[in-house]
Amino acid sequence: MEFIPSYTAYIERALKTVDIPQSPGRLYDPIRYFLSIGGKRMRPILTLLGAELFGLEKERVINSALAVEVFHNFTLIHDDIMDEAPLRRGFETIHTKWDSGTAILSGDVLMIKAYQLLEKQEGDLRQLLTLFNRTAVEVCEGQQLDMDFEKRSDISVEEYTEMIRLKTSVLLGCALEMSAIIAETDLETRKHIYNFGVNVGLAFQVQDDVLDLYADPEKFGKQVGGDVLSNKKTMLYLLAKENAGSSQLQRMETLLHEEKSAKKILETKEIFDQIGAKELCLEKINYYFSLAQQEMEQLNVPDRNKVRLTELSTFLLNREV
Amino acid sequence: MEFIPSYTAYIERALKTVDIPQSPGRLYDPIRYFLSIGGKRMRPILTLLGAELFGLEKERVINSALAVEVFHNFTLIHDDIMDEAPLRRGFETIHTKWDSGTAILSGDVLMIKAYQLLEKQEGDLRQLLTLFNRTAVEVCEGQQLDMDFEKRSDISVEEYTEMIRLKTSVLLGCALEMSAIIAETDLETRKHIYNFGVNVGLAFQVQDDVLDLYADPEKFGKQVGGDVLSNKKTMLYLLAKENAGSSQLQRMETLLHEEKSAKKILETKEIFDQIGAKELCLEKINYYFSLAQQEMEQLNVPDRNKVRLTELSTFLLNREV
Repeated sequence: MEFIPSYTAYIERALKTVDIPQSPGRLYDPIRYFLSIGGKRMRPILTLLGAELFGLEKERVINSALAVEVFHNFTLIHDDIMDEAPLRRGFETIHTKWDSGTAILSGDVLMIKAYQLLEKQEGDLRQLLTLFNRTAVEVCEGQQLDMDFEKRSDISVEEYTEMIRLKTSVLLGCALEMSAIIAETDLETRKHIYNFGVNVGLAFQVQDDVLDLYADPEKFGKQVGGDVLSNKKTMLYLLAKENAGSSQLQRMETLLHEEKSAKKILETKEIFDQIGAKELCLEKINYYFSLAQQEMEQLNVPDRNKVRLTELSTFLLNREV
Repeated sequence: MEFIPSYTAYIERALKTVDIPQSPGRLYDPIRYFLSIGGKRMRPILTLLGAELFGLEKERVINSALAVEVFHNFTLIHDDIMDEAPLRRGFETIHTKWDSGTAILSGDVLMIKAYQLLEKQEGDLRQLLTLFNRTAVEVCEGQQLDMDFEKRSDISVEEYTEMIRLKTSVLLGCALEMSAIIAETDLETRKHIYNFGVNVGLAFQVQDDVLDLYADPEKFGKQVGGDVLSNKKTMLYLLAKENAGSSQLQRMETLLHEEKSAKKILETKEIFDQIGAKELCLEKINYYFSLAQQEMEQLNVPDRNKVRLTELSTFLLNREV
């Protein structure tokens, strides 16, 4: 995985060339700030690896890669307002550092910036725009479902899966498919690479849910058990609930009403362990990962082109669970 | 002007065909609501009249017309949150009827809808997207300047003009130029029709400022003197200030600190009348209108094609001042 840092550095350099004017400062300073606080840049790296897969130089897809990353950052800015999140990657969110109005308008202009990057992308612009628009709508729908689910206690595993597919996974599929469009592949190829991305995304999100409670506190960037404290209905919770016996179900219900404490986290973990929720999640992860692999196998490109993309997805899914 | 209602009806019918899904309801219900509370549909009508100007059937530009209208509605939804406006066109704003998070996300997806309409527009998509993106960025910059100006007391007429150019006028220019792009005119023609729209927009906005204080209360949709009550630095105020003698200046300053009352409106009107602020504004309106006419004259199309667009702009600027 020694190739990742050079790809990240390439994206960081390219991001710095995106034209963010000085004035009005109140509009553009927050954008400069937000883009500078980092992130894994996983999505644009996928676009670059997609280019490699189809035999294109990464320069050829850089505007699409940046468009996807910029769009992702726009969604984070607005989601943080809606979720009233004070921090993002350990830094103050825009609506905290400035105010909500600033975060709304800076987010808006950042979304338009994504389309300005797209406007510069070589290739079939109509196909690129159609894919990008459909994905953007779906990401908003996913965020809406996520908010809707906070007020409900009867979410099924299927509904949750659809929510994370929309909110997170489709943008990974889009990031990859854009390279296929630029490389002018056939529709079959576009479908396979998109589905590969979506399935990696689903696996990745379920893994995120597991890590929240089972990560090594030394290595995890945020508080372990955060989802438990906020009673979030994650895949871990939903699979536990679906597989719990009636007394276990009662215990889970009782724990939901307990106040935020280390004890609540510990006891939730105990009941999840009893049910085997972590293992059920790992099965899910492996399932989506194997679906992704099947899509990759069906891709009609030389095997050597697939190496890095396969390596990256394996790496992403081998974060310490 | 008997042609206007049929154009408005055409736009309303077309707007109803825009695909707004049923689910998630919390995301799409507010959009359906907001698009149903009306508006003059001035911008999409300009696009249709632009098509006529260049000899195209209006069906050929309808997706661009709708994109501009949908984008305009997105800006209203987000502006209303930032301005904490309870009402829009006499109806509850989305953040009032639902909440801010809902208004943010519904606005976001509505902006993407504008790009989805654009994606369906025949013609040179790259040119259309480039113009639309640049305009969209400028509209956001205009909104930012407008908010910045609220906290300042030293706005010049030039700064104010630049703010209304960005916030309001460029979208009128864009609405018209899109038709020129679809009609594949030369760049010179595109420049003239764009400038025509921008100048009509400037004249229209200054007229709006005058109407706030000088409209017939019987015919005006909102409270006469609203800008005076909120100490808004409109063109009327700025031209009065620029042309006031020192005692008049002092009087204006005193009035700014008076509480909201009918007396405040009346006395502000008296001092504006003394300075001749309304006439100074009418000069501005005529100036921008004559600039618009000059642009129209330079347009190399048959005079009969210009009739309706000229009629519309005259009509817009003859609202009772």
